[in-house]
Amino acid sequence: MTILGFDPGTATMGYAAIEKDGNRFRALDYGALITPKEMPAPERLLKLREGILEFLNHYQPDVVVTEQLFFSANRKTAVQVARAIGVVLLSVAERDLPWHEYSPMQVKQAVTGYGGAEKKQVQLMVQRLLSLSSIPKPDDAADALALCICHANHSGIRQMLKP
Amino acid sequence: MTILGFDPGTATMGYAAIEKDGNRFRALDYGALITPKEMPAPERLLKLREGILEFLNHYQPDVVVTEQLFFSANRKTAVQVARAIGVVLLSVAERDLPWHEYSPMQVKQAVTGYGGAEKKQVQLMVQRLLSLSSIPKPDDAADALALCICHANHSGIRQMLKP
Repeated sequence: MTILGFDPGTATMGYAAIEKDGNRFRALDYGALITPKEMPAPERLLKLREGILEFLNHYQPDVVVTEQLFFSANRKTAVQVARAIGVVLLSVAERDLPWHEYSPMQVKQAVTGYGGAEKKQVQLMVQRLLSLSSIPKPDDAADALALCICHANHSGIRQMLKP
Repeated sequence: MTILGFDPGTATMGYAAIEKDGNRFRALDYGALITPKEMPAPERLLKLREGILEFLNHYQPDVVVTEQLFFSANRKTAVQVARAIGVVLLSVAERDLPWHEYSPMQVKQAVTGYGGAEKKQVQLMVQRLLSLSSIPKPDDAADALALCICHANHSGIRQMLKP
């Protein structure tokens, strides 16, 4: 099963693809789509859209997951994030793919076993679970990988790590 | 000049097209795109997208305007609205159209001369300015018309109404 994850944002959208085979995960790809600050909002979304479509076409995923947006103090950023989520969901619907979203707490819980885990702990677990040589960069890519892992395995992660 | 306005939302997206010829406005079309509650979020956005594209293709506007989102108590709705805005902006960027957004206060100010105007006052002015036989329905369509008027004429509306 191929899982694609997006950690949405307009300036930086993290993306990741993992393959789940039984209890094993393998990172196929991860990174971030970047759009320049000075670009008008519609064009930024179009640029993201091109990256999203390329990624969907290349990996032909079985499912797409996104991080659920929680509104914080920065409402302007929240609007931009939600707009970008709209473009992801549209692209998902066009391909008739299943879609799930997880809250940041659900992701932390699934990856580290603790919903209040620090960002660094999550990143270290992502690195470990996917046997990566270093912590995935940028943070948005690590978040997208964490999302994929969350979807792949809500509960069985710690068992998997046992020898 | 043909101006297209969208009052974004996932359940109901108001749309309107007006033609501006000198100091005169004419409503070409207005209404609302509706998506069913039970439809999953990605499909709802796809359905909106189809309506948006049809509308853009039909009217070949010179400019597209949307209402700026302000976050209120209902954050869940705000996320859905912002996602829908994302789909509008993407469609605008694909056609390389100019885009503007206006706050609800700017719209009220432009249409009635008072930024704190009641919804009903705005609707009555929309009816009057466009010489419509009744207040446009649903509210979302009236809002989209008001947006178009706002873009067409920030300041000169009251002069235009003078005999």
